Amino acid sequence: MSGFDHTARRARLQERMAELSVDVAMCLPSGDLEYLTGFPRRAPSFGNIEYAHQWVTGALFRPEGEPVYIVPQGYSAFNLPDGVEGDVVTVRNLDDGAAVFSSVLARFGPIRRIGLSARTFSRTAVRMVEMTGGAELVDLDDEINALRRVKAPDEMEAMRRSALICDRVMEEITSSVAAGVTEFEISSRVDYLMRRRGGKYPSFDTGVFAMGPALDRDASTRLTAAPLVEGLGVSFDFGTVVDGYCSDFGRTIHIGEPDDRYREAYALVVEAQEAGRRAAVPGAAASDVNAATRAVIDDAGYGEWFRHRTGHCIGLDTHERPFISEEDMTVLEEGMTFTIEPSIFWPGHVGVRVEDMFVCRPGGAECLNEYSRDLVSV
Amino acid sequence: MSGFDHTARRARLQERMAELSVDVAMCLPSGDLEYLTGFPRRAPSFGNIEYAHQWVTGALFRPEGEPVYIVPQGYSAFNLPDGVEGDVVTVRNLDDGAAVFSSVLARFGPIRRIGLSARTFSRTAVRMVEMTGGAELVDLDDEINALRRVKAPDEMEAMRRSALICDRVMEEITSSVAAGVTEFEISSRVDYLMRRRGGKYPSFDTGVFAMGPALDRDASTRLTAAPLVEGLGVSFDFGTVVDGYCSDFGRTIHIGEPDDRYREAYALVVEAQEAGRRAAVPGAAASDVNAATRAVIDDAGYGEWFRHRTGHCIGLDTHERPFISEEDMTVLEEGMTFTIEPSIFWPGHVGVRVEDMFVCRPGGAECLNEYSRDLVSV
Repeated sequence: MSGFDHTARRARLQERMAELSVDVAMCLPSGDLEYLTGFPRRAPSFGNIEYAHQWVTGALFRPEGEPVYIVPQGYSAFNLPDGVEGDVVTVRNLDDGAAVFSSVLARFGPIRRIGLSARTFSRTAVRMVEMTGGAELVDLDDEINALRRVKAPDEMEAMRRSALICDRVMEEITSSVAAGVTEFEISSRVDYLMRRRGGKYPSFDTGVFAMGPALDRDASTRLTAAPLVEGLGVSFDFGTVVDGYCSDFGRTIHIGEPDDRYREAYALVVEAQEAGRRAAVPGAAASDVNAATRAVIDDAGYGEWFRHRTGHCIGLDTHERPFISEEDMTVLEEGMTFTIEPSIFWPGHVGVRVEDMFVCRPGGAECLNEYSRDLVSV
Repeated sequence: MSGFDHTARRARLQERMAELSVDVAMCLPSGDLEYLTGFPRRAPSFGNIEYAHQWVTGALFRPEGEPVYIVPQGYSAFNLPDGVEGDVVTVRNLDDGAAVFSSVLARFGPIRRIGLSARTFSRTAVRMVEMTGGAELVDLDDEINALRRVKAPDEMEAMRRSALICDRVMEEITSSVAAGVTEFEISSRVDYLMRRRGGKYPSFDTGVFAMGPALDRDASTRLTAAPLVEGLGVSFDFGTVVDGYCSDFGRTIHIGEPDDRYREAYALVVEAQEAGRRAAVPGAAASDVNAATRAVIDDAGYGEWFRHRTGHCIGLDTHERPFISEEDMTVLEEGMTFTIEPSIFWPGHVGVRVEDMFVCRPGGAECLNEYSRDLVSV
């Protein structure tokens, strides 16, 4: 487990549990659990990965004292190469998983209110209600998000390293972009280069997608096997994981000489991002940053083609709340980390996005990436 | 959406819902939802991906009639390039997601019992209880698993194609295995080759790991950046996704001339798999197949180093129940699809695994893979 101060993090959760009269909180393997204990998440998989007694896997927290980890044999043997420190209850294959879980719960005394971290399996929630004779469920998603949203210096340092891997990989990959090469080949190389530079996994599915007058293609198709041709903007969207912390980065580079529309769109997107950066000060609402970014693209008449939120907070998860989006009125605080990623994705005409990671600072957000925003054509 | 008969699949769920007096069932994007409707899952990500109102995303089923899909704007714009057919309620960013969800629930009449598919977010479950004035939660994980576990011919066909991609990729990758190459480079190429042959994503994180007398390394570390050396067995563990269906495949190939221990272990693992295959007939318990496989390795004195279950069912998810494991007494039925994947992973001495996908058939399971089990050294 890493050098982060998990005890201090848990103390803040425990304080909230006491205030909310939550007697026990369940966290399954997740960003929440990693935040609170260092218990690592396994690699993501498309189809569910499941071991016997999977639904009891995780940790139970109480308002005072140390958590109890419950780990099925199949999970611990091949997903926790470094083991777990602390009070660990192993559930053997032949054990009755529910009985083991129930006996751990019984250690905690009478339970009236059960807290659940985000995305806890409903099976676990339902069984906990049964085992406690009808305790009330309390959704702790917002509570734990509130603990996680302002990053400490050591978290920011991990995120900076995660972001800088993206910068270096973007430099390296540029020479691979050419007519005749496929998006698949390029994205495969991006994933390889991120890993070679120390990223543990991609933080999400790498996107490499070409748009422009030569191709009636939208950004919702993130990857194809067709060879690239001249006259397209190739948008990259990728990130990696360092010490559990995610990065998320984007640039668009052009194959061949860009036309005027591409140049205009590219300049607008860079300008929009800078407007968002300046607006992202402590005290501003997340939706204000979205509005400031969007205004640049709206005013130039391309608003219809900026079709997604401006960004999202990021940390142990790729998308964390608050979102830099029209509906999110959360007031930004110094030390929140988020993306600003305006785009103009107009199928058959132009596709450009520029995305970096920022930290909220007085005077305007500080960028965690170093990669240039100059227009690049190859 | 694909050509599978989702209406017939839903009819079987609806029959069970009526029997269980479940008034409404919630499925979030998952193998369950894809099984029942064709609603696709997005690519997996290490850190959570989340859009505004994420917790309402999915479909609500009732005992009669068609499901209602609830899809947030941010999710539909970039994760459903082909859209969704049917009764779709879009939740705009600025909508009150809970209010929209509640209004859909209200269409269903009085709700006393709420069914939940596997891994439904607890936030969704908790809010549904609130919205219905205290309806009872029913875990449908086992119910939907029971619908999914015996595969229809069209599912088997998708799985065969998924398995054959693994066979072809194993053939292609063999020439890349050599001293001096890293596991990272090989696994990156495996992922690329699977995609080039039509696999949508890896079905789980590709493992390429060398073990043997020259290296004190365990199978729980699935990938390193160290160059391979002579005298090691390199185990592959990978799979891909075709029409939503997962494959899972494994072989070990040796760099340099294998020693006697490696030859012995290799022969045992192949023999153990064959013993499991013969035992995997309709009417046998899953645990019997595990026992038959394990006996071969136990009897030769290597039982301590066969440290995981023999296999698991597979389909839209990588790991489905029943598991081919000591604790699983489920009786096998013709048409169940599963892996048989015995190993001898003895750190510092030898590492071998052979894994294929099988279908339960009278007379012994039928293998979906075609790749040879002969010992290969390069």
